[in-house]
Amino acid sequence: MSQFKPYNIYGIIGYPLGQTLSPLIHTTSFKDHNIPAVLIAWPTPPDEVESFIKSVRLLNIRGCCVTIPHKQTVIPFLDEVTDRVKKVGAANLIYWDGDKLCGDNTDVKGFMAPLEREPLPNEYQKVLLLGAGGAARAAVVGLQLLGYTDITVANMTYHSSLTLAQEFNLKTIPWHERGQVEAHIIVNSTPLGMLGKFEADTPYNAEWFKGKGVAYDIVYTPNDTRFRLEAEKAGWQSISGIGMFLGQANEQYKIWTGNDLSANAKQAVIDALAKK
Amino acid sequence: MSQFKPYNIYGIIGYPLGQTLSPLIHTTSFKDHNIPAVLIAWPTPPDEVESFIKSVRLLNIRGCCVTIPHKQTVIPFLDEVTDRVKKVGAANLIYWDGDKLCGDNTDVKGFMAPLEREPLPNEYQKVLLLGAGGAARAAVVGLQLLGYTDITVANMTYHSSLTLAQEFNLKTIPWHERGQVEAHIIVNSTPLGMLGKFEADTPYNAEWFKGKGVAYDIVYTPNDTRFRLEAEKAGWQSISGIGMFLGQANEQYKIWTGNDLSANAKQAVIDALAKK
Repeated sequence: MSQFKPYNIYGIIGYPLGQTLSPLIHTTSFKDHNIPAVLIAWPTPPDEVESFIKSVRLLNIRGCCVTIPHKQTVIPFLDEVTDRVKKVGAANLIYWDGDKLCGDNTDVKGFMAPLEREPLPNEYQKVLLLGAGGAARAAVVGLQLLGYTDITVANMTYHSSLTLAQEFNLKTIPWHERGQVEAHIIVNSTPLGMLGKFEADTPYNAEWFKGKGVAYDIVYTPNDTRFRLEAEKAGWQSISGIGMFLGQANEQYKIWTGNDLSANAKQAVIDALAKK
Repeated sequence: MSQFKPYNIYGIIGYPLGQTLSPLIHTTSFKDHNIPAVLIAWPTPPDEVESFIKSVRLLNIRGCCVTIPHKQTVIPFLDEVTDRVKKVGAANLIYWDGDKLCGDNTDVKGFMAPLEREPLPNEYQKVLLLGAGGAARAAVVGLQLLGYTDITVANMTYHSSLTLAQEFNLKTIPWHERGQVEAHIIVNSTPLGMLGKFEADTPYNAEWFKGKGVAYDIVYTPNDTRFRLEAEKAGWQSISGIGMFLGQANEQYKIWTGNDLSANAKQAVIDALAKK
């Protein structure tokens, strides 16, 4: 047999974790790159996050993806976090720097990846951001890094959109007025349209799409959300959340291993989503 | 790609764990049987055993080998232990039975395996057991199950041999008189001869071997210990600790998976030992 190399363990922490594709994409890529490592799904209730981080240290877990609802709550239990984490206020990645357990955020780069690969027309300047949670924060930071200054945020809880607007110098409007805002780029960072209880929903009515523009859905399960389908039907472009998912996962993998994800691993996720 | 199955994590806990072959044998066999699982070495200091068991529960670790010095200390942190554990006073295996975290002991069956495969001549009835620690306890239980009643134990710390002798109805003699005991079967359960600081040592002087008999060394790193080599030179048979190691590992694997270890996994351990 070939030389045996001990395995390293990585994980993803969130709650619940039914839909996660992180074990598939990272474990497949580790295998493709001949790295003896696997990534495990650890659904962890909020009151066990502190114990979980202790276990990460004790069992020498080499890294973790962090997802909803733990992206903020893990921060106080880490030794250090990057400036990106401070800016977004959330960590989606745990990694070791020597003997320090650190947090980083790759959602911003993930959000930017599809827009950097295929830049939008210059005349698309007005942005409507739907939702004001953790994903919205990553989107705002990404949009501002790309030079967008005219961003309006709408959220079902008006107070949350005000807080976000004040922190990042955005405009804000009440949720029920979102159809009246002129916008070329509409970003959905709400769970509306996601597989499960919100699948039949959309954050934006079909008749509101005017002129030309692009609908960017952060939701990727299913790939074809009602929001995207209705935007396309109205003659708009659309961007699927799969681009952001692959982008943030690639940055995570790069921080852990120094490599990009294997093409096969990315395809495995696309294939898995096509089945949903 | 083939259907992705999430991995399960197994481990071995001990301190230190430099020489362990458990990750090699179990991970190789999981792979050979197409079971998505790996076994990780977790060197764990004694004062962290309780936290470790909490982590096993929290991270849903599916099983653990337990080795020196934790075979007794893990017991109070488990939900149940088998009668074998109670008899030997030590657990070398953690497994789940439903939602109960349980302890078992496969060292007894491991010790018996080489003797069951090739039974010794009937005239070999007198046993000298060197050492009185955890491995000695497993050997005594195994020997008694095989029908041996004339067992004398010698240990460097006389008090320990007295305790063992009283509990299992053995004879005992002081360590310095062990060369004067008539014996057909001599079992070494001390670390004398083991790779590291005791490698040049033997628990039994070469000139003491008389007549015919069998020298059973529980030490298997190296495979050819001074004790075994000198016994063979004196015309005795010998049994290497590798048989016990493979036997106890096979029982562990069977409790976890229902299968015997793959032949390839056992060969991988034999090959790895040949290199030491």
